[in-house]
Formats: sequence, structure tokens, C-alpha cells
Amino acid sequence: MTSPHRVGLDGEYDESELPLLLTRRGMAEWMEDAVRVLDRRCLPATVRFIECREVEDVAQAIETMAIQGAFTLSLAAGYGMALALRTATTQSDANSRLRAAAHRLRATRPTGLALARMVAACEASAEAAQTRGENASEAVVNTVDNAAARLARQALATARHALPLLMDTEAILTHCFADRSLLYLLIEAKRTGKVMRVYCSETRPYLQGARLTAPAVSEIGHRATVVTDGMGGFVMRRGLAQALVTAADRVCLDGTVCNKVGTYQYALAARANGVPYYVMRQSGPDQESADEAHVEIEFRDGDQVLDFMGIRTTADGVDGLYPAFDITPPELVTAIVTDRGIFDPRVVADYARRAGELEQG
Amino acid sequence: MTSPHRVGLDGEYDESELPLLLTRRGMAEWMEDAVRVLDRRCLPATVRFIECREVEDVAQAIETMAIQGAFTLSLAAGYGMALALRTATTQSDANSRLRAAAHRLRATRPTGLALARMVAACEASAEAAQTRGENASEAVVNTVDNAAARLARQALATARHALPLLMDTEAILTHCFADRSLLYLLIEAKRTGKVMRVYCSETRPYLQGARLTAPAVSEIGHRATVVTDGMGGFVMRRGLAQALVTAADRVCLDGTVCNKVGTYQYALAARANGVPYYVMRQSGPDQESADEAHVEIEFRDGDQVLDFMGIRTTADGVDGLYPAFDITPPELVTAIVTDRGIFDPRVVADYARRAGELEQG
Repeated sequence: MTSPHRVGLDGEYDESELPLLLTRRGMAEWMEDAVRVLDRRCLPATVRFIECREVEDVAQAIETMAIQGAFTLSLAAGYGMALALRTATTQSDANSRLRAAAHRLRATRPTGLALARMVAACEASAEAAQTRGENASEAVVNTVDNAAARLARQALATARHALPLLMDTEAILTHCFADRSLLYLLIEAKRTGKVMRVYCSETRPYLQGARLTAPAVSEIGHRATVVTDGMGGFVMRRGLAQALVTAADRVCLDGTVCNKVGTYQYALAARANGVPYYVMRQSGPDQESADEAHVEIEFRDGDQVLDFMGIRTTADGVDGLYPAFDITPPELVTAIVTDRGIFDPRVVADYARRAGELEQG
Repeated sequence: MTSPHRVGLDGEYDESELPLLLTRRGMAEWMEDAVRVLDRRCLPATVRFIECREVEDVAQAIETMAIQGAFTLSLAAGYGMALALRTATTQSDANSRLRAAAHRLRATRPTGLALARMVAACEASAEAAQTRGENASEAVVNTVDNAAARLARQALATARHALPLLMDTEAILTHCFADRSLLYLLIEAKRTGKVMRVYCSETRPYLQGARLTAPAVSEIGHRATVVTDGMGGFVMRRGLAQALVTAADRVCLDGTVCNKVGTYQYALAARANGVPYYVMRQSGPDQESADEAHVEIEFRDGDQVLDFMGIRTTADGVDGLYPAFDITPPELVTAIVTDRGIFDPRVVADYARRAGELEQG
């Protein structure tokens, strides 16, 4: 396989086919003496990169939301682990740097499963390389690149399973940044000559829909229309969108979906209007989450709701509440699309038993 | 009755009990040679007034959204009519100024029923005054003040009918700026010693919830919590709010509710979670609107969705869609509260036959 950080991440697409956010430079790049990341906070107005020369720089880029999205986060954190090892003088120095880096990077997102898994994989590969007397930093970079390529192939498999569901659909509604699976799906649709309209709800307070999804949809060559988070129900009731498609931050074994707050209202409106709701979750359900009772909703700082790109929106003495996710019960979900195919939410636990081309990521 | 523009608008409250937006200075004041209005665009950060010396100033204040809310709009437009007459030299001059002013002010909001009614009432009272040889400008000011006092009493009657529905409720969710009825209800609740939490959804793109409702709730002495427009469903599913309460821009004779876009999703979430949805509509159903087929949804400039206070949120080449209102079918509405009492939405057409203390406004 060609090195995945020189060509399209998964070897399937040229960089020219990909929207900025799916290119290496739009995510995170290993620069030998630095990790270069795209600062997503100022998108789409400004395309600015941050060069992280220390683990602490990577950690802060994650904590300040300069980096966003589970996949990009784990990529940056993984390269951060390589950065920690780069200038180690002795094996014992390397070990202590590695432990400190793993600790610091894990703390940036205590609930981020993908990031924690990547950090653990990097620790393991560094130790194995040391045992073999090989360059640990290079081993970590290879681990990250291989994991990234595998996750990308998994997302592409998911996109290809979902495509037939939407081939007769003129317009879809999506919420937040559905990341790789949905964008690959749109690239695949475009390759068949199909152009869709994608209604992107802006996704306050961080505006991922307006700032990230809509520009990416437009770059791929589809029509992007932004609506506010209160308008998705109207869009479906009017018949403007014929399917609701989102990612999921987590899917439980009983088919419960946890995704960006606002998804639940859209799922209700989809059901009320006979619009199918498809969830793209490339790696299937979380084996540790039987049902909703196993999902803790993360509350972020309520002040973030009282602010719009740095401008305060309300008066002193008013609170904000910021649940980052909400719960959609399985009866509102039409299908969960994974790299192993399409599942009725009631039997999504069968994912573990269904053969896949790829191991679970 | 004391002059309604010197004391609390309806004589029921002292100005000190009212949040800024319900005081005369927070709406529109007749200053003899000008109409002074509060510029709502910069609230709550800046309290700034605009002195309109010409009809055109009033029209532009309405068109640029400096003035907001059906009641305040009609008050300002009515005083604008008085302004037109103030310096008229002859009766024929007055007549032509009056016609021009009515034409200009009506054009500011082609769909604004309250504004058109107020302008028509002002035309009639000016003509009657001229016939009697009285000062037409003074007659128009009196007409506006009397109409304002009557509408305020009607809103207060509505608030008092609604209060018992919410006396056992710890927290409610509201959307957009529900205006006088809801705020009077909160003042009445406060007088009984009851303090509630009011979840205010921010109401993009114009942020009436964050900028207007939440500060007013807080001024009255209740607890205001802002959430984004995607969070109301979460708030109800978690049991954080035990009632959904909104105004309505229009109620049809079959109980269909037309209100700020986003209301429909909340009504669905309320129903799904056994939360009652109360609509406050002081003047009952619109006698000309049998059902949804009689309601045309106003689409505003989609670009307004792509921007916040001058900051662009997305990339070039991305559209915005801005339906200003949405439709909530009657089966999702628990009750419609009017100045004549509480109605099941299925029989709200009975409003016309139910005796009221006040004529319909």
C-alpha cells in the first residue's frame, strides 16, 4: 500500500476529490519534528494551521477545540505520542516521556473512546519496537497511519452500504458534522453522477453544521443549504428532505443512538412525517453499552451556549445549559449502517456475529 | 383611567415591576415631536433609543428590525401616523400625509395583521376628528393609547387564565419571545411568591430567546436558562421542564398553531414525553383561517441564517433557508389559553361565542 499520508488517506480517492476536512492537511500531518493540524475554530473564513512541537501543544489544540472530530483527535493524539519519543535520549527517558504523554493526552477528552484507544495502541507499539531494538517514534507513526487507513476503509465500506438507501433521494437532512462516512457517501454518489441537496443544521453552539459540514458538502459538488437547529422539523414536514442521516457518537446494543444534541428532535420529526432516519456508525454498537442506562450524557460549560463566536448573546444573571449529546430511542431509527452492512436497530447487536471485511475499529 | 403612557401600561403594574421590554420606554413612546423606540437589535448588551422624527424613520426602524414584536410594531406605527399629521397645514395636506404614511407603514410588514389593524384604526380616528374639527394628531395618539391599554388588559386576562395551569410546575420551556401574556404570567406568579425556572431556547437566527426573553424573565425575578434550539427535546425528555409554553403568531379555527420556526419540534417532543403544551393566544383564533391550508409560511432572506451580528458562519456557495414560522397540528397542543379562558384546541372556534370581558383585539 502507498503511504497513506502521501496520497488519499485510504488510497481510494485522490486528494483532489476530497473536501479539505478529509485531506491529511485538513486533519493532522506528521512533519517529523512537529504535528501540523488545521485550526478548525476559524473555518471556513480562515484556513490556518497550528504546528505542535511538544505534546503539550497537541493537548492544548485538542482542549481549545482547534482540533475537532473523533477521528482527527485520535490522529493528532497518536502523532503526539510519536513527538514525545522523538528526542528521547535513553530507553528509560523514552518510557517516562511516553507515560507522561499518554496521561496528558488521555486527560484532554476523558470520554473520548477513539482517542484513548489510539493512545493505548501507540504505547503498545512503542514498547514492542523498543523490545525489538527499533525506532519507537517511527513505529508509533506507522501505527497511527495504519489505524487511520483502517478506519478510513471502514468508513468507506459504511458509505457504500448506505449509498443504495439514498439513490432515489433528492435531498437529505443532516445534523452536526457526520464526518467520514457521510462525506464518502456523497463522493460516491457524485461519482455516479448524482447530485443531492444536503440540508445542514447549523448545530449551535459550535456551528459544526454551518462551518464544517456545509462547506465540505459544497466542495464535494453537492448543494448545501444551512438551516437553524429549529428548522429541521419544518424541512421534513414540508417534504423538502426525504431522509434524515446522521452519525452517532455511540450506538447501544439495543439500538439506542447517542449523538449531538438536537438529533432526538429530528428523529421525532422524521418519524412523525414518514421520513426514514439512517444512522451511520461504521464500527457498529458499543459492546459495553447495553442500553440508555449505560450512557452518561456529557454536560459542557453552559457559558458556551451564551456566546456566539465570541459575542455574548444574553444578560448577566442568565444561565446556560449545555448537554453535548442526546438520546434517540431505537423505535425512532429506521436503520443503522455499519461497515458490515445495514441493521434494523432492534438487531444491531448481531453486528458482532456478522462477518466483516475488516476487523472492528 | 390614568394616562396609560405615564404609569404601567395597563394600570395593573408599576413600571418598577415590569421588565424593560414591557415598559413604555422599552416599547415606543410618543414624545410630541418624535416617536422614541428602544433599539432591540443591540439588546441586551446596549440599551439605545432611536428618535423617529419622520414617518420614514419609523418605517425604517421596523424594516431594520430595530423594533420587534407585533404589539410594539403596531404601537410605533400608530404613533408614526400621529407624526405624519403633526405639522400638517391644511386638512387636505393632512389627508394626503395620512394616506402616504398609512401606505408606507403597511408596506413594512405586509403580513403583519396587528400593524395593519392599528394603522386602519388611526386613519379612522383622524378622519373622525377632522369631521368634528378636533386635533387629528391628538386623536390618533389617544387611539393608539387606548388600543394599547385594551391589548394589555387582554394579555393580562390571558395570563391570569394560564396561571393555575402552571402553579405546580417547577420549570417551563419556552421558545422565541412570547411577549406580554407569558411575562405577565411570570409577574403574577412572582406576586404569589412562586419562582420558576424558564428554559429559553435561543431562537436563531435572531436570538430573541437569548437576547429578549431570558433577560426579561430574569428581570422579573425568575431563573432564566438559555439552551440552543436543538436542546428543548432533551430538556423535556430529561424531565427538566414540566410544561412547554409558547405564544402563537396565528391560531386557526381547527386549533392549528402557527408560531416561530422550531415550535413544531418542541411540540412533538412534548407529546412524546407526556409534557403538556400550552399556547397563549390572547385574542383567540383568526376567524379567517379555517385550517393550515389558509396559512402561508413567510420565507425571509436565507442569508440571515448564514450570519450572526455580521459574522458569516459558512462558506461561499452555501445557501440558507429561512422559514420564519412552522405549523403545529392541533393534536400536539394541550390547550390554547385566551383572554376568554382555556380551550381544547379542537373547540377553539367556540372562542367567538364565549362571552369575554373585553372585545376581541
